[in-house]
Amino acid sequence: MSQARAYTATSATAPLEPGTIERRAVGPNDVRIDIVWAGICHSDIHTVRGDWGPVPYPLTVGHEIAGVVAAVGDQVTRYQVGDRVGVGCMVDSCRECSNCRAGFEQYCRKGMVDTYGGNDGNGGVTQGGYSSEIVVDENYVLRIPDSLPFEKTAPLLCAGITTFSPLRRWGAGPGKRVAVVGMGGLGHIAVKIAHAMGAEVTVLSQSLSKREDGLRFGADHYYATSDPATFEQLAGSFDLILNTVSASIDLDAYLELLALDGTIVSVGAPAEPVPVTLFTLFDNRRTFAGSKIGGIRETQEMLDFCAEHGIAAEVEVIPAEGINEAWERVLASQVRYRYVIDIATLANA
Amino acid sequence: MSQARAYTATSATAPLEPGTIERRAVGPNDVRIDIVWAGICHSDIHTVRGDWGPVPYPLTVGHEIAGVVAAVGDQVTRYQVGDRVGVGCMVDSCRECSNCRAGFEQYCRKGMVDTYGGNDGNGGVTQGGYSSEIVVDENYVLRIPDSLPFEKTAPLLCAGITTFSPLRRWGAGPGKRVAVVGMGGLGHIAVKIAHAMGAEVTVLSQSLSKREDGLRFGADHYYATSDPATFEQLAGSFDLILNTVSASIDLDAYLELLALDGTIVSVGAPAEPVPVTLFTLFDNRRTFAGSKIGGIRETQEMLDFCAEHGIAAEVEVIPAEGINEAWERVLASQVRYRYVIDIATLANA
Repeated sequence: MSQARAYTATSATAPLEPGTIERRAVGPNDVRIDIVWAGICHSDIHTVRGDWGPVPYPLTVGHEIAGVVAAVGDQVTRYQVGDRVGVGCMVDSCRECSNCRAGFEQYCRKGMVDTYGGNDGNGGVTQGGYSSEIVVDENYVLRIPDSLPFEKTAPLLCAGITTFSPLRRWGAGPGKRVAVVGMGGLGHIAVKIAHAMGAEVTVLSQSLSKREDGLRFGADHYYATSDPATFEQLAGSFDLILNTVSASIDLDAYLELLALDGTIVSVGAPAEPVPVTLFTLFDNRRTFAGSKIGGIRETQEMLDFCAEHGIAAEVEVIPAEGINEAWERVLASQVRYRYVIDIATLANA
Repeated sequence: MSQARAYTATSATAPLEPGTIERRAVGPNDVRIDIVWAGICHSDIHTVRGDWGPVPYPLTVGHEIAGVVAAVGDQVTRYQVGDRVGVGCMVDSCRECSNCRAGFEQYCRKGMVDTYGGNDGNGGVTQGGYSSEIVVDENYVLRIPDSLPFEKTAPLLCAGITTFSPLRRWGAGPGKRVAVVGMGGLGHIAVKIAHAMGAEVTVLSQSLSKREDGLRFGADHYYATSDPATFEQLAGSFDLILNTVSASIDLDAYLELLALDGTIVSVGAPAEPVPVTLFTLFDNRRTFAGSKIGGIRETQEMLDFCAEHGIAAEVEVIPAEGINEAWERVLASQVRYRYVIDIATLANA
């Protein structure tokens, strides 16, 4: 066991506080990682505030983790001390079900082990990346390619794979008209990835305030969803819509934008059910899908793809003391486009 | 113009009444069909009762039409007097949009022309198959293969294509686990078609009352959805669920039955929106889709497929005077499995 510095939530409403948490001893297949950067994901806030269910306080969140290997167990073969590595939203799964065996550990039938708030297998709760170190089985650790800028890579571990996986699954590529709903932490990476895949990319954002950024990230078109004319003009014109917004949207209105056999994939998740009108779904034989991060193999493919195409997140680096303020700014949609915590500053917090 | 005998709705609540309607003169590309059999589809009732929107009374419904060619226009090349032909849910479309050109006339961007209640292009309303004759452009007429029993073919024109198209689109075939929700007019044909396609077929019906029929039609398994154990036992076990029920179902409960990358396709349509919980959709990367009949080319493929595999509807033949009573029995789920009107009896009505 070891003590790690961490910023931790003690209730749904209190500010996160600095302190220490315990990390398990490094087992034979484990890697101990000195965390260098941790992204702030909207999910961290949803979780702590209880939007998605009961919370096992005290809880250290964070599942966009980039760091350096500090120690390895004696059975570890993939990593060495000093390697740059990442950890995303899961740290384990059953490894035996059909989904795990097929490389879709995120859909493990016994439930993947969440990086934070999950069952640690020893009666405890997993603790996430707003922390100085973490111990993870090497099979759930990713390699960060040398060419990726370190701090800008952390958000790829959640925001990157969450958008890469459905874009690939539903065939974003040359000749495909892809719309990205929302230009936040997920959306801005989705634009870069879809563009790199060769698709014709349209951003559907509430306003045009981030238009120049969107075009710079690779969007071909940019529309404001606050303008009703957008929905008339774009009716029936997309093969794929990736919805990155976690608030409820008027799904029927977006369904109308799909062409024949088009799909809208939601990766953002309001807790309450979303109403869908079947007659809208019937027309053009539309499909409404969900997608959840990606498997370990695919997450590595995503990192390698991003390295190859020079894709990384747009980030604002903050010290640990800035976490609580940063959360407020995330909730107010004021971040451009992802906060990343400089974990070295935890030592002073 | 000609006068045809017909059973017609004059309001949402009054019984249908016998009388006459006008049919247009046979144009150069038209086929005049002496209707022999007309199926009773639940949609006929929904439409007349105003469940799906305003109704242009008086309206003659019916879109499962089997008959014999009585006259052809001078440009008609596909059909001759005496041919056995069918007409389904549409009698025209724009023929110019991308969907029409691709053979998906049912998704015509200007709107397909419904067989009844549609815009007839001359300021009038199209009238359907509870009638002694109909005049239709030859491009929207289907050929009924000789080996298909005539009266049992009428329901294929709606119930058959509505289930065949999504089963084919979503890959029902060997190695695929397909569930059919509902064992009514659509469901019983879906079971036969999915079985003929080579899929492993499970029926999910409210009770086990039609179990023997289901197994005889080709189902491998049969479960009652009124038993909560069904949903536990079958969790994560289907690649495709075809929902033929037009009442609202607990979609989330059925989504839980889908395996990785599984799809639930609804072809039954409650008018009100259906709530979908995104976290359920995320898990196993599930999709929810809609599908609406099929294109003309595909409808012909369906008829040929049914002829090849000896598939037809299970029907109860009724005289025209029995239509109103039959509607009540459809609403009470007492039909096994499709009523077909013997149109010859219209002469006496």
